[in-house]
Amino acid sequence: MENYEKNRFMRRALELAARGAGAVDPNPLVGAVIVKDGRIAGEGWHKKFGEAHAEVNAFSSLTESAEGAEMYVTLEPCAHYGKTPPCANAIVKHGIKKVYIGLTDPNPRVAGKGAEILKNAGIEVETGVLEAECRRINAPFLKHITTGLPYIVLKWAMSLDGKIACHTGESKWISCEESRAEVQALRNRYIGIMTGINTVLADDPYLTCRIDGGRSPYRIICDSGLKIPLDAKVIGTDKKCIVATVSGDNDKIAKLEEKGVKVIVTPESNGKVDLNFLMQKLGASGINGILCEGGGTLNFALLESGLADKAIVYTAPMIIGGRDAKTPVEGAGYRHIPDCVELENVSVRQCGTDFVFEAEVRKNVHGDN
Amino acid sequence: MENYEKNRFMRRALELAARGAGAVDPNPLVGAVIVKDGRIAGEGWHKKFGEAHAEVNAFSSLTESAEGAEMYVTLEPCAHYGKTPPCANAIVKHGIKKVYIGLTDPNPRVAGKGAEILKNAGIEVETGVLEAECRRINAPFLKHITTGLPYIVLKWAMSLDGKIACHTGESKWISCEESRAEVQALRNRYIGIMTGINTVLADDPYLTCRIDGGRSPYRIICDSGLKIPLDAKVIGTDKKCIVATVSGDNDKIAKLEEKGVKVIVTPESNGKVDLNFLMQKLGASGINGILCEGGGTLNFALLESGLADKAIVYTAPMIIGGRDAKTPVEGAGYRHIPDCVELENVSVRQCGTDFVFEAEVRKNVHGDN
Repeated sequence: MENYEKNRFMRRALELAARGAGAVDPNPLVGAVIVKDGRIAGEGWHKKFGEAHAEVNAFSSLTESAEGAEMYVTLEPCAHYGKTPPCANAIVKHGIKKVYIGLTDPNPRVAGKGAEILKNAGIEVETGVLEAECRRINAPFLKHITTGLPYIVLKWAMSLDGKIACHTGESKWISCEESRAEVQALRNRYIGIMTGINTVLADDPYLTCRIDGGRSPYRIICDSGLKIPLDAKVIGTDKKCIVATVSGDNDKIAKLEEKGVKVIVTPESNGKVDLNFLMQKLGASGINGILCEGGGTLNFALLESGLADKAIVYTAPMIIGGRDAKTPVEGAGYRHIPDCVELENVSVRQCGTDFVFEAEVRKNVHGDN
Repeated sequence: MENYEKNRFMRRALELAARGAGAVDPNPLVGAVIVKDGRIAGEGWHKKFGEAHAEVNAFSSLTESAEGAEMYVTLEPCAHYGKTPPCANAIVKHGIKKVYIGLTDPNPRVAGKGAEILKNAGIEVETGVLEAECRRINAPFLKHITTGLPYIVLKWAMSLDGKIACHTGESKWISCEESRAEVQALRNRYIGIMTGINTVLADDPYLTCRIDGGRSPYRIICDSGLKIPLDAKVIGTDKKCIVATVSGDNDKIAKLEEKGVKVIVTPESNGKVDLNFLMQKLGASGINGILCEGGGTLNFALLESGLADKAIVYTAPMIIGGRDAKTPVEGAGYRHIPDCVELENVSVRQCGTDFVFEAEVRKNVHGDN
């Protein structure tokens, strides 16, 4: 079969997979397409954590037999009994002739075993179709399952001269309405959202996802000195606010815990929250992806420690100016150009009147964990 | 005739016009295409200041009679005897049936008179074909002829977090090789190049155009305190270095003039060079376009005074970080988001590994002259 056709069906499977965003964590996003005589006969995706997998939903959608059909799945079908029976067995049972797999599952409980079941049943298997895209859509899942750490996305909105606020602190609104709506969708996609205490003190944000039916993320506040006011809006009432600190103020900690806040006390790293320790804790508790909407200090700390994976930058068509205006990445900064963080797989697209960069932090050069 | 065809021929005329970049100032860039029976029969462009105009070159390129043909010109044909006879007369003489004009000439010596000559001779005239593009290609000419001021383009190279250097001052190289080559072409396009004394002191640049056969620009240094070293490379030996200052150090001025430097002493504006005064002087001496490769102080001063017209921003896929790293627009900056400089007609394209923004300063809102 031509690559064009293969890619077309796998791309459709990826589109389906994306529909599960915000509902399947810590599971991966998976889409599946069943092709008969060159046309799509069935399709499905993993819709919700704990519910049916993509393959099973694709079979359920059929109005004809799958006998002799081909199947496209973005991730290797599972081979283990988890919350649902193994998908590989279902594929065998339905008489599928050939399976195209985007990405081999890095989960040690699966890792090639799904493909093995298929091959042993005489099904032809081809892996690596649109592998890069299949990897990208599950970046949080993949980092978390291989390192135990959450995938961290730095998000900021800036003017074309690189300012995230006027020197007066005013920042409403640098990005356009369409961009702000998109950020709501990002808050639905990542299970955690993080910011620094300065943002909380300056803006008193809710940091919730305001999409109808959207999942509000865990709200993680980096607050070394435990300055968070007990009436901060970010605390909410849903017990999804996490405060990371190095403070030993047990009285304040108790008061926060009374309000449903989870307080994580970390060792000190230069007097501040040890971000590596924090991320290991968060990863262990199932938080596999974090959208960081912090300021320049937190962004630099996450980059310097090698924890940051990606940047999403909303660039607005304006110039703010000012020697004292805040910029998106501050801290000490790098001394030499060759030591700076390199970005790869950079793309830019328009969103309303803004331009949105998406870029991955090159890991083989800087701070790989 | 269909718009598609009209636009196609005018676009070709624009392509031809662009070939004169760097050679025709202070004249406009003009291209002309002669169309017979739906095909291009002749074409030409204004190649060099003082030499034949686009229309004349198009007629020269013909291998057949122009009788009954149509002609596309990016700018209204001239009606006056300058260094060459009026092009409008030549068009009449060649028996052209219809003329499509991109933009009416704003030069008061032409202003509709060229079209008038054509109409009086019974030639059909249609104006405004791809007018916005025809305006854009001659932005320096148009601003200069209507205001007496040069068109000012701010150019900078920055990291994705908006830094133009590390906090150590290191900035070689933020932009990629392809971007740096493009800047050489920009230096050929604009008749003047400008920077601040701090850039001269830090980098000791030549600020010449290193394209084979390219025209090196006038090099304008904004140097309020007259700190330029007498052996600065930017001075050169071609008498194309201009230093603007408020200093009364006549001894230093005399020494600079001995080296062929033109020194412009301006009134003080907050103790610094009065940029409005300077630009009027430069405009009066025939400098119609300036590429400003300065730092954040000069860039902000040019924006705040309403003198800047456009920004070209090379954005590199790296993060430099640093509270103390230099940013492209500094000075005091704007206090409130609604007061910031708005940009319009923003485009972005890839150049090597960089992304290049081009954006025009919205003039009806901020500091229109």
